[in-house]
Amino acid sequence: MQDHHSRLLSRSEFLKRTGLMTIGGSLLGLAACKSSTNQQASSQNQSGSLIATPVSNGQTSAIGGEVVADPTKLPRVAADPTKVPPPPTYGSPQVHEIHLTIKEVLAEIKKGVIFRFMAFNDQVPGPMIRVRQGDVIDLHFTSDKNNKYPHNIDFHSVYGTGGGAVALMCGPGQTRHIRFKVMYPGAFIYHCAVPDLDMHISSGMFGMMVVEPPEGLPPVDREFYLGQHEIYVKPPVNDHTEALFDMEAMLQEIPQYVVFNGAFNGLTSERYGAMQAKQKERVRIFFVNGGPNLSSSFHPIGNVWTRAWRDGGLANAPDKYLQTINVPPGSCAVVEMDLPIAETIVVADHAITRHARQGASAEIQVSGNPVPEIFNEHPDA
Amino acid sequence: MQDHHSRLLSRSEFLKRTGLMTIGGSLLGLAACKSSTNQQASSQNQSGSLIATPVSNGQTSAIGGEVVADPTKLPRVAADPTKVPPPPTYGSPQVHEIHLTIKEVLAEIKKGVIFRFMAFNDQVPGPMIRVRQGDVIDLHFTSDKNNKYPHNIDFHSVYGTGGGAVALMCGPGQTRHIRFKVMYPGAFIYHCAVPDLDMHISSGMFGMMVVEPPEGLPPVDREFYLGQHEIYVKPPVNDHTEALFDMEAMLQEIPQYVVFNGAFNGLTSERYGAMQAKQKERVRIFFVNGGPNLSSSFHPIGNVWTRAWRDGGLANAPDKYLQTINVPPGSCAVVEMDLPIAETIVVADHAITRHARQGASAEIQVSGNPVPEIFNEHPDA
Amino acid sequence: MQDHHSRLLSRSEFLKRTGLMTIGGSLLGLAACKSSTNQQASSQNQSGSLIATPVSNGQTSAIGGEVVADPTKLPRVAADPTKVPPPPTYGSPQVHEIHLTIKEVLAEIKKGVIFRFMAFNDQVPGPMIRVRQGDVIDLHFTSDKNNKYPHNIDFHSVYGTGGGAVALMCGPGQTRHIRFKVMYPGAFIYHCAVPDLDMHISSGMFGMMVVEPPEGLPPVDREFYLGQHEIYVKPPVNDHTEALFDMEAMLQEIPQYVVFNGAFNGLTSERYGAMQAKQKERVRIFFVNGGPNLSSSFHPIGNVWTRAWRDGGLANAPDKYLQTINVPPGSCAVVEMDLPIAETIVVADHAITRHARQGASAEIQVSGNPVPEIFNEHPDA
Repeated sequence: MQDHHSRLLSRSEFLKRTGLMTIGGSLLGLAACKSSTNQQASSQNQSGSLIATPVSNGQTSAIGGEVVADPTKLPRVAADPTKVPPPPTYGSPQVHEIHLTIKEVLAEIKKGVIFRFMAFNDQVPGPMIRVRQGDVIDLHFTSDKNNKYPHNIDFHSVYGTGGGAVALMCGPGQTRHIRFKVMYPGAFIYHCAVPDLDMHISSGMFGMMVVEPPEGLPPVDREFYLGQHEIYVKPPVNDHTEALFDMEAMLQEIPQYVVFNGAFNGLTSERYGAMQAKQKERVRIFFVNGGPNLSSSFHPIGNVWTRAWRDGGLANAPDKYLQTINVPPGSCAVVEMDLPIAETIVVADHAITRHARQGASAEIQVSGNPVPEIFNEHPDA
Repeated sequence: MQDHHSRLLSRSEFLKRTGLMTIGGSLLGLAACKSSTNQQASSQNQSGSLIATPVSNGQTSAIGGEVVADPTKLPRVAADPTKVPPPPTYGSPQVHEIHLTIKEVLAEIKKGVIFRFMAFNDQVPGPMIRVRQGDVIDLHFTSDKNNKYPHNIDFHSVYGTGGGAVALMCGPGQTRHIRFKVMYPGAFIYHCAVPDLDMHISSGMFGMMVVEPPEGLPPVDREFYLGQHEIYVKPPVNDHTEALFDMEAMLQEIPQYVVFNGAFNGLTSERYGAMQAKQKERVRIFFVNGGPNLSSSFHPIGNVWTRAWRDGGLANAPDKYLQTINVPPGSCAVVEMDLPIAETIVVADHAITRHARQGASAEIQVSGNPVPEIFNEHPDA
Repeated sequence: MQDHHSRLLSRSEFLKRTGLMTIGGSLLGLAACKSSTNQQASSQNQSGSLIATPVSNGQTSAIGGEVVADPTKLPRVAADPTKVPPPPTYGSPQVHEIHLTIKEVLAEIKKGVIFRFMAFNDQVPGPMIRVRQGDVIDLHFTSDKNNKYPHNIDFHSVYGTGGGAVALMCGPGQTRHIRFKVMYPGAFIYHCAVPDLDMHISSGMFGMMVVEPPEGLPPVDREFYLGQHEIYVKPPVNDHTEALFDMEAMLQEIPQYVVFNGAFNGLTSERYGAMQAKQKERVRIFFVNGGPNLSSSFHPIGNVWTRAWRDGGLANAPDKYLQTINVPPGSCAVVEMDLPIAETIVVADHAITRHARQGASAEIQVSGNPVPEIFNEHPDA
């Protein structure tokens, strides 16, 4: 039992040493806290180090979080994968007014598992933003007045301290505004960057900004928007009680769920339905990996990435015919498929236990006709 | 002890929630099960969710699996790394008849650790298949009549639902047949895709199909075939008893062993012997990472990848002089080395604990002469 | 409790099976041991398998390591990130005399956590070496006479068994000498390669050798040198007692700390101070990931990699505008940033819990002026 106890002590000490039971936190987050000139925000920042405190606007259970009378009435946070902005077609650089609001909201990861998401504009991942290199963004960020945590945003598409996070630090009910020019092309993640940023990202606080190069992207027939992230959560007490965040599991990088668009097998027939496409189309997926910690091995079952821009690096020539693409946490990929035949494609993280057991699946139904010359399931019939 | 118990509860709940104690499983696998029209196969599919049930054709131990009277008589499953098909040299596209048979078979991971492998044509990884873009494959898949689990195959080189897995779903004693044209070039993994596919891949159910581009690959002097995968297994009761699969460790992505060609340091002098090459040759390795979950950081100790096709993307120009190449689970790499001097090269996963302690080592003995101008171990002698 | 005990048994057995409680170890290391002709070295090699034995030149605690009277007097091991050798400008190939000495030395990972580092030339990572393809290295390696473990070096830039590790095997007080020609360009790691190499690398035994291509690298205004690695350590008994190495955590690849240049948030204002740069400069970072086990998702917060040579592959064209670059353990990256505005950049591992809680942060202070056309934090002021 010696090993056993020392291991357990180790885990407990682990939390202490790494600051989980103290203020702790990231440099950037601390910087952000310090730079905040707003008293209310500062006091809210303190709560950033509290772990999974149940929000009190509902009844709370002894060892779980908030109790929900009717879970069927909880909102959907899974982003609609077809909500992709059109490519920029304007002639000269534009100024874009963009509004992002963060809301802490209970929703189901899967039936029976209620989780406190942090959703930009009520969706996970947050809205896809699409602009062109040289454009200017007027970014307005609001934290819902019922939030309990401090929030901000770090845009990977920004030259500037914290990717804008310091200037965007918000307490509940506050709004911030920054303006920036997008100087370089690519598909970039944006995400929360407070001291507990890993917890906030794992709660859904990430999205994508695509900055197209001047010449634009090659035309395709259809585009989708998918975000992967992992969720660290303790087992719920029951189907009606919020499952609490599991900080220790996050430190160990061993999540309970790995999902696309915030829901366990969400974009499949068992939940919100598959994506739809048509034979002979070329489809593009804008893919963002929020992490907070795991790389994705992004793969289309029954197809191949015809073209793939690694890490969302649109300034580079795409790779051709990749089966599986590594997408680090805090990075993106832009990938395309050809659809020569009717089939069901399942996109997955090919760290395949995540697909098999933790929710990392999304379906694309390709309507059309079989083409036996390419794929014949019954050659003897 | 609070932390301790909550953590243990968490683990137990973890299994429940993620479906390990229920039917659960992957979307694709479920689809595959449903599509099976064969009664026997369907009933066998049920057992796909049973965890590590000892096969009853031998005596079984109380807390281990099957008991083996004489482990020295267990077969070798480690694929011969020199069994590489020749490159396609025929003029016009060909039709290939390919037969793959899956067998559940006891063998030793290392001396003293008996494991129930699932081996294509009695080897891990399964046979390397080599064809050319535009060729047609007549694929015949058979599940040995003594198997206990359902099986199928997903080919990454196939346009078609499940990469062929749905059509290839087999119960014990059954055979399936599909036909497909390989439409795009590259080195692609094939692997099992039933609901418990991660367990099946971790048991050895993966291999590689190389689809050469029309112009072929540059000629080299020697080619090898290596597959990496990780094994999740509980400690064996003793040297004569099958070690049981460890589903919880797989969920945590913390394997016991990480091996090349299915054996702990198998392709070295301590087991089946090193690979052999000669000074001044250029050698190529066709490398497939089955996973099921871990990326490989594939590196030749004492050498460098002169050319490397990331992810097996043969349609792209290779990178030059890479020390270590990331190969995601469910992906491949084609890499080459020059051998200017006689030396012993050890290929390894440079997540180096896997090499140091978990079995991820394979040796290449390069015969020839020292070249002191390049490498002089005793310059003062 | 069934699960609980079986899990604990499993862990204990895990250690036994994987050789942690025996001699065990890597092939290369074993080869190296065998090849040693020196009696003293051989006997020292035996101690390579002892785990975290307290060094007896100080008082030792019952459950910790050495006791340090005044931790404030412990040395700094964090390499100065500005100590970058100049690029080679000589005409013809040169012979370089390089001396590396390894010393086992107590230092603080962070205030309150004393750790036994293994430092090349008193720094982590070891000195950056910069030469040109075709040059010759006379490498002299010395193990400090007060060391307790055997040591050697594997250079990824070397054609030769073990990357030179076999010939460089040293017991305490010994010196070895090899000579080699650098035949191919790139940025390469060097690291210890004894049987317990993962423990030694995790203790700081890694560094970088840059082999420039004949045409050199594009000129930049400023260069930095950073090394990432993860540390597996048990909680210290107290602030004055050496924290012991945690072999089990290393097997699980769950480190306590992930750091740049050997120190928890070391290159920031909270410890040794930020790196300094000036607006409008282009800066280059030579980055080495020692591992031993984790990939880095290397990202500059508030900036972008303008050019990035993946895996240190200087023979390849760099990628442009990458937000986050995957750097496997045992690999490198050469990355550059433009600095159009004054800002604070924080480089991080974007497996963001490592940045938030485990020490993976380093700051670059860019002096100069704000450029509101690019980034305006207060557009309404």
